[in-house]
Amino acid sequence: MFPLHAARPGQPVAAIDTPALVLDLDAFERNLRRMAQALQGSGVRLRAHAKSHKCPEIARLQMAHGAVGICCQKVSEAAVFVVAGIRDVLITNQVVGEAKVRRLAGLATRARIGVLADDPQQVRAYAAAARAVGAELDVYVEVDVGAGRCGVAPGEPAVQLALLIAESAPLRFAGLQCYHGPAQHLRQPGERQAAIAAASALARSTRDAIVARGLPVPRITGAGTGTFVHERDSGVFDEIQAGSYIFLDADYGANQAGAGDVAFEHALFVRTAVLSHATPTRAVVDAGLKASSVDSGLPRVWNRPGLRYTKAADEHGTIAIDEGTEIALGETLMLVPGHCDPTVNLYDELVCIRGGVVEAVWPIEARGALS
Amino acid sequence: MFPLHAARPGQPVAAIDTPALVLDLDAFERNLRRMAQALQGSGVRLRAHAKSHKCPEIARLQMAHGAVGICCQKVSEAAVFVVAGIRDVLITNQVVGEAKVRRLAGLATRARIGVLADDPQQVRAYAAAARAVGAELDVYVEVDVGAGRCGVAPGEPAVQLALLIAESAPLRFAGLQCYHGPAQHLRQPGERQAAIAAASALARSTRDAIVARGLPVPRITGAGTGTFVHERDSGVFDEIQAGSYIFLDADYGANQAGAGDVAFEHALFVRTAVLSHATPTRAVVDAGLKASSVDSGLPRVWNRPGLRYTKAADEHGTIAIDEGTEIALGETLMLVPGHCDPTVNLYDELVCIRGGVVEAVWPIEARGALS
Repeated sequence: MFPLHAARPGQPVAAIDTPALVLDLDAFERNLRRMAQALQGSGVRLRAHAKSHKCPEIARLQMAHGAVGICCQKVSEAAVFVVAGIRDVLITNQVVGEAKVRRLAGLATRARIGVLADDPQQVRAYAAAARAVGAELDVYVEVDVGAGRCGVAPGEPAVQLALLIAESAPLRFAGLQCYHGPAQHLRQPGERQAAIAAASALARSTRDAIVARGLPVPRITGAGTGTFVHERDSGVFDEIQAGSYIFLDADYGANQAGAGDVAFEHALFVRTAVLSHATPTRAVVDAGLKASSVDSGLPRVWNRPGLRYTKAADEHGTIAIDEGTEIALGETLMLVPGHCDPTVNLYDELVCIRGGVVEAVWPIEARGALS
Repeated sequence: MFPLHAARPGQPVAAIDTPALVLDLDAFERNLRRMAQALQGSGVRLRAHAKSHKCPEIARLQMAHGAVGICCQKVSEAAVFVVAGIRDVLITNQVVGEAKVRRLAGLATRARIGVLADDPQQVRAYAAAARAVGAELDVYVEVDVGAGRCGVAPGEPAVQLALLIAESAPLRFAGLQCYHGPAQHLRQPGERQAAIAAASALARSTRDAIVARGLPVPRITGAGTGTFVHERDSGVFDEIQAGSYIFLDADYGANQAGAGDVAFEHALFVRTAVLSHATPTRAVVDAGLKASSVDSGLPRVWNRPGLRYTKAADEHGTIAIDEGTEIALGETLMLVPGHCDPTVNLYDELVCIRGGVVEAVWPIEARGALS
């Protein structure tokens, strides 16, 4: 009896079993087009981040809308997309461990694969593994441009690592990864702009220092949904790694818009049903922590004023009901998840709807691809 | 290339791919025995909650250690366990929606199935579906004994619902569900004891009111790992629904112990590797939000003083390194997850270790069984 499909194509939306992860195709397609338009003529290309959706069908649509390839975070995740026919994947992460690096090199025999480094040990391991299977591998130096997570310091440390990669055939020094994660979630447009101005200055000076040593820097890549207009306009970034723009979760939705920001819209929802309504001011829905990730805030109730999602337990979500608002046992709600990436990772399928009908069910093939 | 198994039985622990969900079998088996001992001679039985592990192999071991059956939270989850041979399952939840109630009744043709109600509509739907397939169904009245989530009010509302169930053949009125979720996580032993004393008083008065109307109350069930000693000693509960005791997560580990509390130990870990160590005071591991749920706090680094997990991103965990502490790129750590239930739900398998060797790999068959 398990796994059950939450719905079949052709069924009405009302027939979708709950909880289910639902994609509003009209909104999703508008988001795809908005991103393509935002980059058109800028000379900056999109390499869409697939960690947000883990779904090859979506990757194919992103590429049909101009993306040059995708990003992944893990080797096992990249493998799913390579098998599905995506032939240009950048793993925006360091890969460590003999078996994992061997799998990375194996993928590079089947597709163009990029990976990050912030330590000479990684470079040596990548080179040995690539050599063993006769593969080439694009290696980017990750530079810490303000995120305070992975990455070497800007300037000379990055220069040294770039030079090491360049002399470590069959590796190719492919450029700089300059992603500023925390900047994506700064609420005020001015804060985001300032963070990316600082990141861009560090990316530029690091690039110039590498070029001054005679080594070209083929690409400077980074950015996310929250800041990409600033990287696009920086004059130094030439590739954008946005992922969440296709879905727009509640956290990104809470960012204040600034001049030039692109207005994406919510396209991803958790459909849930009321299973208990024991008091007039409280209902309980069947979507809790295992149905919607709460790390970036609780889900929001979509288009139902007077109802607020106030508490998540494993399998229960508590809904506070304002006076004068009605909701019935069994009624369904659409929730906007707080954070799309870990929410998508809870589901095996995406139920795609349009005009009140289930149009498709797309497997989330890289769900759980952690390694 | 995916799904890959993180390890094979017989391999050394060092060979486990990361991140992986790891069960320390010695600690787990001690936890199983501690619970059996804690209930021995009490007249109170264990119906272990399977939402914590979603793993039929663990359910079988719990029953071998005296559990009379299991609890599940969802129909699809229960279906996995029934198919795996567990023949007594209580769904500790209301089930709403025609298709779902039909599946519930279908399960009741194959196993003894219980379910909760807190509304007459649910009772009528259960009765119609059970009648349609010729199944009997145990229905418990959920009473809100302080949790403020699902459940009718104690006293007369519970009496009315119990009487309705009793006259709704082929339903059987099976007793009262009196679970106090928030009490499990109260830090001080006195707070937990007081909460369960109040809950027990409400359970008792409600039971007495039903019995006074001539309807026997076969069972009063509830409790979790944080409070079960109090329900055991209450004189009114006769069934315990603990689940987390087998794993003991960081949140339960932070509860202060009181007189009579049973000392369970951490048995569940996320094994993770250092993928970046770009500064002396910071390392980054490969287990983030998609590898360990953070809703009840960040994971704790196990048995490595001087290292603290300070921040979780989707696929990265930041480790703060105290002065004088060393950690190397590629080194592995064991993390104690903040909350076991949603963490287990992120994985397809449990890598079971003993004495430095992988002894078994158990599928988490009900992973993602949300509906």
